[in-house]
Amino acid sequence: MSGIDGCLVKYSSAPRATPKNDTKDTSAIIVLDHGDPTMYESYWSKIGNKCDITFNGDNSLSYFANGKSLCWFLESKLEEQIKRLHNVVGSAIVDDHYIVVGTVSSQLMQAALYALSPTYQLEPISVVSATPFYSAYPEVMDFVRSGLHKWAGDARTFKKNGSYIEFITSPNNPDGVIREPVVNGDQGKLIYDLAYYWPQYIVITSPANHDVMLFTISKCTGHAGSRIGWALVKDKEVARKMTKFMEISTIGVSKEAQLRAAKILEVICNSCLDPKMENFFEYSQSLMINRWNRLRQVVMANDLFVLQKYPLQYCLFRKDFYESHPGGEEEDCEKLLKEHKIHTRSGSRFGSDSRNVRISMLSRDEDFNIFLKRLMAIQRPTNGN
Amino acid sequence: MSGIDGCLVKYSSAPRATPKNDTKDTSAIIVLDHGDPTMYESYWSKIGNKCDITFNGDNSLSYFANGKSLCWFLESKLEEQIKRLHNVVGSAIVDDHYIVVGTVSSQLMQAALYALSPTYQLEPISVVSATPFYSAYPEVMDFVRSGLHKWAGDARTFKKNGSYIEFITSPNNPDGVIREPVVNGDQGKLIYDLAYYWPQYIVITSPANHDVMLFTISKCTGHAGSRIGWALVKDKEVARKMTKFMEISTIGVSKEAQLRAAKILEVICNSCLDPKMENFFEYSQSLMINRWNRLRQVVMANDLFVLQKYPLQYCLFRKDFYESHPGGEEEDCEKLLKEHKIHTRSGSRFGSDSRNVRISMLSRDEDFNIFLKRLMAIQRPTNGN
Repeated sequence: MSGIDGCLVKYSSAPRATPKNDTKDTSAIIVLDHGDPTMYESYWSKIGNKCDITFNGDNSLSYFANGKSLCWFLESKLEEQIKRLHNVVGSAIVDDHYIVVGTVSSQLMQAALYALSPTYQLEPISVVSATPFYSAYPEVMDFVRSGLHKWAGDARTFKKNGSYIEFITSPNNPDGVIREPVVNGDQGKLIYDLAYYWPQYIVITSPANHDVMLFTISKCTGHAGSRIGWALVKDKEVARKMTKFMEISTIGVSKEAQLRAAKILEVICNSCLDPKMENFFEYSQSLMINRWNRLRQVVMANDLFVLQKYPLQYCLFRKDFYESHPGGEEEDCEKLLKEHKIHTRSGSRFGSDSRNVRISMLSRDEDFNIFLKRLMAIQRPTNGN
Repeated sequence: MSGIDGCLVKYSSAPRATPKNDTKDTSAIIVLDHGDPTMYESYWSKIGNKCDITFNGDNSLSYFANGKSLCWFLESKLEEQIKRLHNVVGSAIVDDHYIVVGTVSSQLMQAALYALSPTYQLEPISVVSATPFYSAYPEVMDFVRSGLHKWAGDARTFKKNGSYIEFITSPNNPDGVIREPVVNGDQGKLIYDLAYYWPQYIVITSPANHDVMLFTISKCTGHAGSRIGWALVKDKEVARKMTKFMEISTIGVSKEAQLRAAKILEVICNSCLDPKMENFFEYSQSLMINRWNRLRQVVMANDLFVLQKYPLQYCLFRKDFYESHPGGEEEDCEKLLKEHKIHTRSGSRFGSDSRNVRISMLSRDEDFNIFLKRLMAIQRPTNGN
């Protein structure tokens, strides 16, 4: 599952500590394994009825959308708001791209692979991504043992002979680093997974402008339950084949989810432009900064963990200098943290080192607070058990 | 695309006719190729606000549903209404089945194949269905060239050696016939596609009770835009693997679509139980009967087409005798009808004869009326043109 993934926490060689007992929360495991973006719930609770959308019994019965898009099931309202959002934020060039809507990035990844894999070949094309890579890649590529494509692991160790597909996740999941292609072979096709290329996670330095770019509402606005993602695709034939994939695999994408996503993106755009509204990205960035600062304090107060650092970059969107705040941290040992009732995802799942873990930073405040409390407990060894 | 599919129309050997010109609709092609179930829109327009559902900004952010189902993304409200509907209609045994929700039947078919295909094997398992079969089967099985399963065509000509998976579509798409397994080998696994097993299409003779049964809201209520389907699965491990498929391919199913589907199913159940409401199935059955009668009149008035016949069966749901009214007809020649601006689907797409076509009966009244008018024009040759 895609997580908010951010920086790595490394477990240093300090002696293993025993936790103080939590007074209130002894039973519950805090799940920071997957990036369930419930952190933004507080913004949406405050927004009032601006974001409400009602469906009547006779709405959206048809398979077909009301737009004239190459992607025949794409609702025109969603298309409009996707374009508007990218223009307002400056996160991507949309005007010379086709938009393909999907049931989030997972389905769009498969659609892109379907569209970019050679049709007539004996061997499946190799698919690579540099470690640490998004932990779901190997499974998504290979779960039905496709004859079209095959997961080939770390892009850094991939031999350049022949054709290949490279996933560039930027900012990267799990470590939040801005990435460029690694293989740079002659016959490479590139898919940019830009799920985290939004102002609360990273400074937007320039609008992305690649052949295939994948986005999802989950990490942008927090509405993971809607399962809406979209691809910006330069080549018409690739966009057509991706649309064909969606047609065969699910005959399109839920109209309710699309129309609600359109409403949410509309409100977010408005919040960026209307000074009377609280800017969604500023709000969520300040939440992220606050969490990072508190996490840093806890981590700096001990010798057990190491946090990643991030470069200072110029943010086009905010027109000002900001540090980047990718949404997670990693540690040394999934097992250690699990003993302390913190459920994380081991670095080994990302093709990396099991001394690292990814910790989702996007949970509700309540869970994040318990997480910090338990982390503090680990850093102060006691004599008891 | 799943269509409402019903009976075949055969093109007899009568001489080809020339159409009278439509006075109003000379330019528009009537698309009766895919079964877009907009016919039921009239019911939903009349239902008032009983079916309204509103989403606030902070609803359904999480990946996870609020239920305790094995299918971790299944909304408990939808689970409840699916069970209630099957019990009210008597269409399936639900109490000893697990429910897996999917982005309609297409995704559930793939999930069922994933779950039933042997994990460790050199050759993909053969997947068959008796002709005429649902026209999307070959593409859905083979589009990513899976190493797990492979489309092997007509179940009737399949050799029984070894393991296989058989799709039993009942009532069948495209011809509306109630079906039983055909291969009956020792090592067969069966998937029942029961998309049309609802009272407006077929008399419900007994609650279905099979290992894997697939349903979709599209053909039941007409809400094809929602993309909601469900599987009833007897074996826990199969249900778990199907859920895993959904997790990898789309990390669940849109919450908005699920919650709206729950609302729609609730209203339909109420309409069956509350004498003050217009019973949805009676309403839609009467629409179907009306269309069939009008179509029969047009077809009987000429020698060009032949309609299928359907058996009289006892309907558990209606507690009375009714004729079955599957939702389509088939003809001889897609090309002939296309010349008359009627877009249908050739029998060859269903592994059948191109003298047949499938015509969707589920379009809006307006389109159906134009269709009948054009059909009449074909049957009365003129001297002109």
